Amino acid sequence: MNKDFVKEITNIEEDFAQWYTDIVLKAELADYTSVKGFIAIRPYGYAIWENIQKYMDSKFKKHGVKNLSMPVLIPESLLQKEKDHVEGFAPEVAWVTVGGGEKLEERLCVRPTSETIFSTMYSKWLSSWRDLPYLYNQWCNVLRWEKETRPFLRSREFLWQEGHTIHETEEEAKRFTLEMLDVYAETIENLLAMPVLKGQKTKTEQFAGAEATYTVETLMHDGRALQAGTSHYFGQNFSKPFDIKFQNRQGEEEYAYQTSWGTSTRLIGGVIMAHGDNRGLKLPPKVAPIQIVIVPIAMHKEGVKEAAQELYKKLEKNYRVELDIREQYSPGYKFNDWEMKGVPVRIEIGPRDIEANKCIIVRRDNLEKIEVELSNLNEKLEEVLELIQKNMYDECKKRVIEKTTIAKNMDEFSNNLQQNQGYIKAMWCGDAECEEKIHEITGAKSRCIPFEQEQISDKCVCCGKPAKKMVVWGRQY
Amino acid sequence: MNKDFVKEITNIEEDFAQWYTDIVLKAELADYTSVKGFIAIRPYGYAIWENIQKYMDSKFKKHGVKNLSMPVLIPESLLQKEKDHVEGFAPEVAWVTVGGGEKLEERLCVRPTSETIFSTMYSKWLSSWRDLPYLYNQWCNVLRWEKETRPFLRSREFLWQEGHTIHETEEEAKRFTLEMLDVYAETIENLLAMPVLKGQKTKTEQFAGAEATYTVETLMHDGRALQAGTSHYFGQNFSKPFDIKFQNRQGEEEYAYQTSWGTSTRLIGGVIMAHGDNRGLKLPPKVAPIQIVIVPIAMHKEGVKEAAQELYKKLEKNYRVELDIREQYSPGYKFNDWEMKGVPVRIEIGPRDIEANKCIIVRRDNLEKIEVELSNLNEKLEEVLELIQKNMYDECKKRVIEKTTIAKNMDEFSNNLQQNQGYIKAMWCGDAECEEKIHEITGAKSRCIPFEQEQISDKCVCCGKPAKKMVVWGRQY
Repeated sequence: MNKDFVKEITNIEEDFAQWYTDIVLKAELADYTSVKGFIAIRPYGYAIWENIQKYMDSKFKKHGVKNLSMPVLIPESLLQKEKDHVEGFAPEVAWVTVGGGEKLEERLCVRPTSETIFSTMYSKWLSSWRDLPYLYNQWCNVLRWEKETRPFLRSREFLWQEGHTIHETEEEAKRFTLEMLDVYAETIENLLAMPVLKGQKTKTEQFAGAEATYTVETLMHDGRALQAGTSHYFGQNFSKPFDIKFQNRQGEEEYAYQTSWGTSTRLIGGVIMAHGDNRGLKLPPKVAPIQIVIVPIAMHKEGVKEAAQELYKKLEKNYRVELDIREQYSPGYKFNDWEMKGVPVRIEIGPRDIEANKCIIVRRDNLEKIEVELSNLNEKLEEVLELIQKNMYDECKKRVIEKTTIAKNMDEFSNNLQQNQGYIKAMWCGDAECEEKIHEITGAKSRCIPFEQEQISDKCVCCGKPAKKMVVWGRQY
Repeated sequence: MNKDFVKEITNIEEDFAQWYTDIVLKAELADYTSVKGFIAIRPYGYAIWENIQKYMDSKFKKHGVKNLSMPVLIPESLLQKEKDHVEGFAPEVAWVTVGGGEKLEERLCVRPTSETIFSTMYSKWLSSWRDLPYLYNQWCNVLRWEKETRPFLRSREFLWQEGHTIHETEEEAKRFTLEMLDVYAETIENLLAMPVLKGQKTKTEQFAGAEATYTVETLMHDGRALQAGTSHYFGQNFSKPFDIKFQNRQGEEEYAYQTSWGTSTRLIGGVIMAHGDNRGLKLPPKVAPIQIVIVPIAMHKEGVKEAAQELYKKLEKNYRVELDIREQYSPGYKFNDWEMKGVPVRIEIGPRDIEANKCIIVRRDNLEKIEVELSNLNEKLEEVLELIQKNMYDECKKRVIEKTTIAKNMDEFSNNLQQNQGYIKAMWCGDAECEEKIHEITGAKSRCIPFEQEQISDKCVCCGKPAKKMVVWGRQY
């Protein structure tokens, strides 16, 4: 094995941030471009996104959601219609001021999110309760002019889906907000093998203009949290300023009840940081662009290349498989290369294997080597890929459990966080000042008020006043 | 039948432009937004685009093409690197000048096309002939600040795919340029039922920066042409200024050979204008978001709604089917509504049909009514949908033949065009001045130099000088 090759990646325990950057660049997931904060998502990274899209889009459609496409530019006057919303987003938008060689009469911002556009069109289209609900979504790019940027995690441009729905009743809209949160939770757990923490954001952390924001939180290798998806209930906060009205069943005019929900290419950053190790990326089989790579051993010997090609043809019907017959590299180099790229299963096949009608399969998750009869390969691969998917989830889950601690006072809070990072469960009085103070002292923010509550104590961890809500806290990406 | 309903659409022979706008809005394909030239593509229109994407994307992938995502913003200095390219595009771009509250040091344009970005990244990534070819594509939005805009046909923002490839040799790059043109031709003919004219653009009409531009041209109901897709061979026009070099097999540095190719949501405009009639839109079954609509007759009578629902369940496995049980509308209204929306097949089922174990199917393309045994429905529908697809293609083909004429001199040229619109076949000396003169006199531009040449005469239709090339001309969208 070419040990030098592995050394090129920074040690994950020594410098996690640099390890992350190394993986993004060396596994060819993305690259920097000539504009700060704008990345090129390379084919290998984009293929992960395509698999996420395909999975999630079919789930949305089962809930009756339809896709559409709204304009990328929003007039300044539209952005300003909802007060909290403009305060939240105006500081971080990019403005188009010149078009077709002429200065524009009104500045147009590149969408940071599209509530204002959807609301304008919904107001135009809606007339009766019979038209409702509108369950629309778009897959698109958005811009937010962040100061600090990191590929996938915090880019000035990112790809996402934004769902925007309007409903006849408050109950229906609230229910739909949570249904979409469940789609996110299911996708992240089942496809991406990352356990999620579900709950409601505190007022401080909720979306600009929302009545309630729900979130799915995930925990990374270094114990910091990543917000992986959010779903917002708006009530009539947008439908009133944007005049989204309908004639209800009683023949009266009523404002619609609205939701929005989004997930982004940030999920790719999550997959990297939740699963990776010192050999590189580790991809869950269900989302991996390449599930299996075939590496022939002693390729120059008679019949080896052909046997590998035959294997490829046999497997490509059922799996996303790659055959590595590059002549300029040794098998050892290839092993490292594909391990770095996180391919879940490697198949090694050499002259002796061919003679014995066997091959070796190597699991990326735990490096286990398994000798398999060629006649039994298809079934064995199916079983192994499932095991890998499950094991990767279990490993993450174990980390979440290990890195979740309870704090009854601020000393415990700080100590736990310092020793362990991770999630801190602690009671909270509901006061935004306590949130701010906790953040100042520890660097942790409230992740959410989990749906699954525990009664840890009856006092706020910060001020000691009576507290009924348990909040999960943590440092975040 | 509710005749009033149909009357709402402008007569197609009286005012084709207004007819087009009526269809776009009333069939809910798209709508205007608060920014001029920016449209919202509504779910019914977007579903057509999704079907085109799915079809074409799988074809690209069979050719080894991989998707990726490049930044939406391009620095001014990059746009200026290729001289012809910047001249072609700079006048019609939108500029971002402010980001995150601050004036930018360098203006960034919203991509009108991405040759400059792809070239920059290719230069960064490429090192050896072993890396080649790069066969990459992106599905995204682009902006071109057009003065005159029309939904789908000429929007300031449109959705498209742009493929960008680099190759080791000129031959391979040229071959790939034509392979992608074939993908377009096959998609437009087979999926969208529109016959295409394939050929090379004249120098005047080719893409800014290209060495050669190939095109697939289509002919609309009114006899005007629509450029439906183009594929460009760049040679080393970009690879030299952008320094896209590799070490070739001889160990020498060489500049890569490049292509790009694109089709856009303009295709939706083409489908509308190629197939529609006075009843509205007419969608080819293969691309129709709804292939079959079930309209129950006398829905209040016992068992009718249930029978229609049963039919729906039976068909939804094999077809994209919709059940219309809206209670506020009569069957007549529904017939008109779905005809306007271009659904290829309508199924009518009422009490007498149920009793006789039959239903009526009605073809949108020729309004033929067919009585079908319910036991035989699935097979019959398959057959009918195929017939419709074929018939729609044949009808378009017939029009192309009818509207294609030959001109040996400018009088014939003008007369034919005035009487017939359509394609004019005429010889051309190769001089751009003649092209310009023809455009001034007749309003027609060269569509292309068709691959299939005919020897109409040996003289240029315009100047009378010796001419070897036959060009097809026509007024265009």
